[in-house]
Amino acid sequence: MKAILKTSPAPGIVLEDISKPEPGMGEVLIKVEAASICGTDMHYYHWNQAGQGFAEKFNVKWPLVLGHECGGTIVKVGEGVTDRKAGDRVAVETHISCGRCFSCQNGMAHNCSNMAIYGTSTNGCFAEYALAPAKVTFVIPEEMSFEEAALLEPAGVAMRAVEEACVQPGDTVVVNGCGPIGLLAVLILKAGNAARVIATDPDDYRLNLAGELGAIAVNPMKENAVEKIKMLTRDRGGADIALETSGAVLAYRTIFDFMRLEGRLITVGHPGGEVPIDIAGNVNTKGLSVKGIFGRRIWETWWNISSLISAGKINLTEVVTHRFTLDEGQQAFEQFAKGSGKILFVNK
Amino acid sequence: MKAILKTSPAPGIVLEDISKPEPGMGEVLIKVEAASICGTDMHYYHWNQAGQGFAEKFNVKWPLVLGHECGGTIVKVGEGVTDRKAGDRVAVETHISCGRCFSCQNGMAHNCSNMAIYGTSTNGCFAEYALAPAKVTFVIPEEMSFEEAALLEPAGVAMRAVEEACVQPGDTVVVNGCGPIGLLAVLILKAGNAARVIATDPDDYRLNLAGELGAIAVNPMKENAVEKIKMLTRDRGGADIALETSGAVLAYRTIFDFMRLEGRLITVGHPGGEVPIDIAGNVNTKGLSVKGIFGRRIWETWWNISSLISAGKINLTEVVTHRFTLDEGQQAFEQFAKGSGKILFVNK
Amino acid sequence: MKAILKTSPAPGIVLEDISKPEPGMGEVLIKVEAASICGTDMHYYHWNQAGQGFAEKFNVKWPLVLGHECGGTIVKVGEGVTDRKAGDRVAVETHISCGRCFSCQNGMAHNCSNMAIYGTSTNGCFAEYALAPAKVTFVIPEEMSFEEAALLEPAGVAMRAVEEACVQPGDTVVVNGCGPIGLLAVLILKAGNAARVIATDPDDYRLNLAGELGAIAVNPMKENAVEKIKMLTRDRGGADIALETSGAVLAYRTIFDFMRLEGRLITVGHPGGEVPIDIAGNVNTKGLSVKGIFGRRIWETWWNISSLISAGKINLTEVVTHRFTLDEGQQAFEQFAKGSGKILFVNK
Amino acid sequence: MKAILKTSPAPGIVLEDISKPEPGMGEVLIKVEAASICGTDMHYYHWNQAGQGFAEKFNVKWPLVLGHECGGTIVKVGEGVTDRKAGDRVAVETHISCGRCFSCQNGMAHNCSNMAIYGTSTNGCFAEYALAPAKVTFVIPEEMSFEEAALLEPAGVAMRAVEEACVQPGDTVVVNGCGPIGLLAVLILKAGNAARVIATDPDDYRLNLAGELGAIAVNPMKENAVEKIKMLTRDRGGADIALETSGAVLAYRTIFDFMRLEGRLITVGHPGGEVPIDIAGNVNTKGLSVKGIFGRRIWETWWNISSLISAGKINLTEVVTHRFTLDEGQQAFEQFAKGSGKILFVNK
Repeated sequence: MKAILKTSPAPGIVLEDISKPEPGMGEVLIKVEAASICGTDMHYYHWNQAGQGFAEKFNVKWPLVLGHECGGTIVKVGEGVTDRKAGDRVAVETHISCGRCFSCQNGMAHNCSNMAIYGTSTNGCFAEYALAPAKVTFVIPEEMSFEEAALLEPAGVAMRAVEEACVQPGDTVVVNGCGPIGLLAVLILKAGNAARVIATDPDDYRLNLAGELGAIAVNPMKENAVEKIKMLTRDRGGADIALETSGAVLAYRTIFDFMRLEGRLITVGHPGGEVPIDIAGNVNTKGLSVKGIFGRRIWETWWNISSLISAGKINLTEVVTHRFTLDEGQQAFEQFAKGSGKILFVNK
Repeated sequence: MKAILKTSPAPGIVLEDISKPEPGMGEVLIKVEAASICGTDMHYYHWNQAGQGFAEKFNVKWPLVLGHECGGTIVKVGEGVTDRKAGDRVAVETHISCGRCFSCQNGMAHNCSNMAIYGTSTNGCFAEYALAPAKVTFVIPEEMSFEEAALLEPAGVAMRAVEEACVQPGDTVVVNGCGPIGLLAVLILKAGNAARVIATDPDDYRLNLAGELGAIAVNPMKENAVEKIKMLTRDRGGADIALETSGAVLAYRTIFDFMRLEGRLITVGHPGGEVPIDIAGNVNTKGLSVKGIFGRRIWETWWNISSLISAGKINLTEVVTHRFTLDEGQQAFEQFAKGSGKILFVNK
Repeated sequence: MKAILKTSPAPGIVLEDISKPEPGMGEVLIKVEAASICGTDMHYYHWNQAGQGFAEKFNVKWPLVLGHECGGTIVKVGEGVTDRKAGDRVAVETHISCGRCFSCQNGMAHNCSNMAIYGTSTNGCFAEYALAPAKVTFVIPEEMSFEEAALLEPAGVAMRAVEEACVQPGDTVVVNGCGPIGLLAVLILKAGNAARVIATDPDDYRLNLAGELGAIAVNPMKENAVEKIKMLTRDRGGADIALETSGAVLAYRTIFDFMRLEGRLITVGHPGGEVPIDIAGNVNTKGLSVKGIFGRRIWETWWNISSLISAGKINLTEVVTHRFTLDEGQQAFEQFAKGSGKILFVNK
Repeated sequence: MKAILKTSPAPGIVLEDISKPEPGMGEVLIKVEAASICGTDMHYYHWNQAGQGFAEKFNVKWPLVLGHECGGTIVKVGEGVTDRKAGDRVAVETHISCGRCFSCQNGMAHNCSNMAIYGTSTNGCFAEYALAPAKVTFVIPEEMSFEEAALLEPAGVAMRAVEEACVQPGDTVVVNGCGPIGLLAVLILKAGNAARVIATDPDDYRLNLAGELGAIAVNPMKENAVEKIKMLTRDRGGADIALETSGAVLAYRTIFDFMRLEGRLITVGHPGGEVPIDIAGNVNTKGLSVKGIFGRRIWETWWNISSLISAGKINLTEVVTHRFTLDEGQQAFEQFAKGSGKILFVNK
């Protein structure tokens, strides 16, 4: 079968024919119908510091089938698998949690102390068939397409940011950064409680995508973002909520200025280095709440987004800008590097 | 000035010319631009048991200017009023809270221990000009019309039901009863987190209004409501949330049957008499939450709904079915008795 | 090995020597060091309507080893068990949840849609050795005794009532009924946020046990409970929180009268029949919250209570009034019927 | 009457006889029975940068009667005061909120947009008699002493830190810094849900005070605080909650290391400058929540602590180490500078 591999710790990817795997104890074999490229895949592709660090931390073995965001149909189940069967349509959670630690037993499996990573600790899904532990598969409802299934994992990060933001009816939410997670957050927020969704990005291509999804688009290189946001939210003295999805250290130079007193900041983007924060002036006297997130709640977030999709309230494919076949893998990775919304590998 | 009065403890209303009042200490005088009829006004009109009881409890004095839902412009302020001024556009909160009791000082002024009622303990707003304590006026944003202002108070009940329901993205909410509060709840819910809003009512006229607002309409006299709701929510085993707005005792015979385990029931409608509840089977083993509400949070709910309106997310006038002048007061009350959405008195 | 059995659908128990079982796939074998009698065991003993109904619902097969509250040491693990080993000291959760349904995947495994019951659907723990699915065992910290382990399951019900009550510092909590769950609730509440814990029971023996644990004891047959509670909580107009643990239908005739506006009622006891509730007067206009509970959160509640015990903050054995050996089984059941705190079977 | 004044923008205080004031519109005159020195008073005393900045921000006028933490009896009320009367025993909230802004109308009066400060924007309470706006007085229950009343305001900061921490039964809480707020937090935490309270301070005098209040005392200069805390909380991988009350920039170098995944950090102390934070490593991937606080919830926090005191659950005077008369004002300020728990001015 065809697969997109990384065969050694060096930049680049390889398209190869490899043998179709057999599911072991507790595993299922999935016929992959759609898969999506994530920033982590790009780190591996470029073999940059982030990619090397992640690979080392989670114990990569070469060759590695890349990819962890996918939707498909189970075609075979391994020994000991009792609650999945051939024919089940599924998506895959990337975080393989242990089920035994304090986090796992207290509703925080997304922060398992013994986490393994699908597509890093194990082979991934950029292939015609993919293995996965049965316990990380999520059965999708019949109303959901495989393309949407492939987007559930990254959409889950955006969804969890929204969940943790506890948006009350009437709140104004700023999404700071319009990469894939930011765009997905805009999509989800527009279908929810927020009175207004404001998106910021210095890149007009990405910003326009957010605007098309319904956000009020603000380019901080072209207008004074703080003034604009404060004007829109002048009844409350600033935005109620901000989702920091850019990961830019500089974002923290303005984000506190456009938030109202007692506002809530959700940090999703990973800044590359320490961020200087004025705790007294920007956190204590402003009464700010900050919540850092990573991954999705397992399985609460999955159910929430799945119900939104099956009820027809959101359509995740609105953030897809490009589709490729596995054969076009090289081209797909290059497109991501050039700039895009979400990119899918699909069976044509 | 013209006013709709009740001059004695007997059925009916009177349209009379009375002298324009002067604001006393702590009061403001409002030029009324729009006002809305509430069920309480109807109880007074019919002088039924509910009306008589309420009048006695809150110490009515005759003659009484009826009405408590209105929007208008302050034209004069009384002594000691420092934070309102002529020209302020306002709506009025019906619940006059004391500010000193435990409820008032703990975020529950909507349940003040020393409550007085605007339009019952005091004269109301079905008149060209109305007095009100400055502290129950809410300054409306410029984007809001007076008609919307007049609907803020009842919409606040619906909004608070939604607030207390804590709708999570993906939840299905059933609104049980499509009277004015139920319709307003549908309107607000459709602009929020819910994946689906299902409305039930045995009266097709009211049910159709809910359908036009976007609810999935279910007439329990014509189809099996429990089966229909459970089918729509089969992934979760029932509705996540129900708002009981009908006040029918019989509603409690089916409402527990279509809710999922650990669901949340918000009770708004007042049943006329005790309701037999199977605590063991329907509350304990189902892990149900029940929250009773009455009135709006002061002022949290007002700000929430006001922000939704000024951002253009909802338009309260969608629930208005009839408009009258004060001169047509008799006709307006009769229309309410016949059946309607919200009815407004407006200046033409 | 010795075991307390029920051999047929009729009143009574039997003490017998049976063969020591072998753990199957996914099971562990536990050497039982302490076990505790629950009301369910008594229903089986008396073979009353509750016992017959529960047995039928959860598919009892005869003979049945009774008992489901225990602490002991794993001596052998079955095939496929990877996260438990011989030597692990454990307690047992009674509710065997499926892990796949909406409840299980959304933090509500205590309300699993496919629940089986340890000691009912399976053999239980009133024996020298007991089998249990590995997934319902909870590894106890070294600071915890086996007697405390045997009490974790019922204490978990009390703990969850306290968790759901969200006691704020300064709150007054009424525990309505001083059976085992009520007593355990008093014990836990006294170690927490509550300013005052008030316990009520018409039975002086049980009430005195609550008093010894630190509650303000009120016998409603001897004094006016409503007046007494309202006097103690006169600054707030009533109790902030009530835990209804008696299951008496009559309790609902007074419980609303001593609660403050916007109070929280947690219902734990199962009334035998429908309870007439004045929704308008006691729920809506009072702004009451009601939450029904059943079982413990899996595993959040277990961790919470386990941490309290290992830090030395509470000592569950304070509610134990009698200890017996398995040989004295008949006597133990008779004592429970006569009246007691918690009764333990221990190895002497 | 005697008063401790600051007569000019320079270091030091002055003890003078001034004329007893008369309450104006909306004011009350209080006979002061006990008052407590706060860090802000010390900033004024030393006339350091913090003191100068605060004085400028809140518009100090000379001469200024210092002091804002006090308890006493109202002896006279000014015009328009209807809900206070001579004879009322009261404490005083320092934050004079406007009642009209978004914060005030949404349960966040502690973060009023138009805040004035009692004892800075107005004269304070280090005098035999003190004026105060009626609306910032809190009527204390008869069970509360004036000394406790004088401590309610700073205790309110500690209480609010505890409220925002949402301590669940079983949680371990670290109080990082044993100044007056830290000590008060230990006192309150020990009477609540926490399984363990750990206090850290490099100063043994202050640390011992925390130890006497029941905390597990850790001096990070003498032992490895991170290791010690992680050992005590090894079942959960770290402390559940930390209250940062030291305001030391360096505290942020270790505080993230001893907290468990998904822990909650409450920041109270004001670091003098920006704090470098590793958002990716210490907030996002750890799933941390951070909440900054300043002041007390008005009036929720006051009621909570007042109820704890009147029920006898806590005794605030346990943190008092020194008592002086107004005549000994100079000595009192010097003692504060040397090191102390809370210092009271009392009538002898």
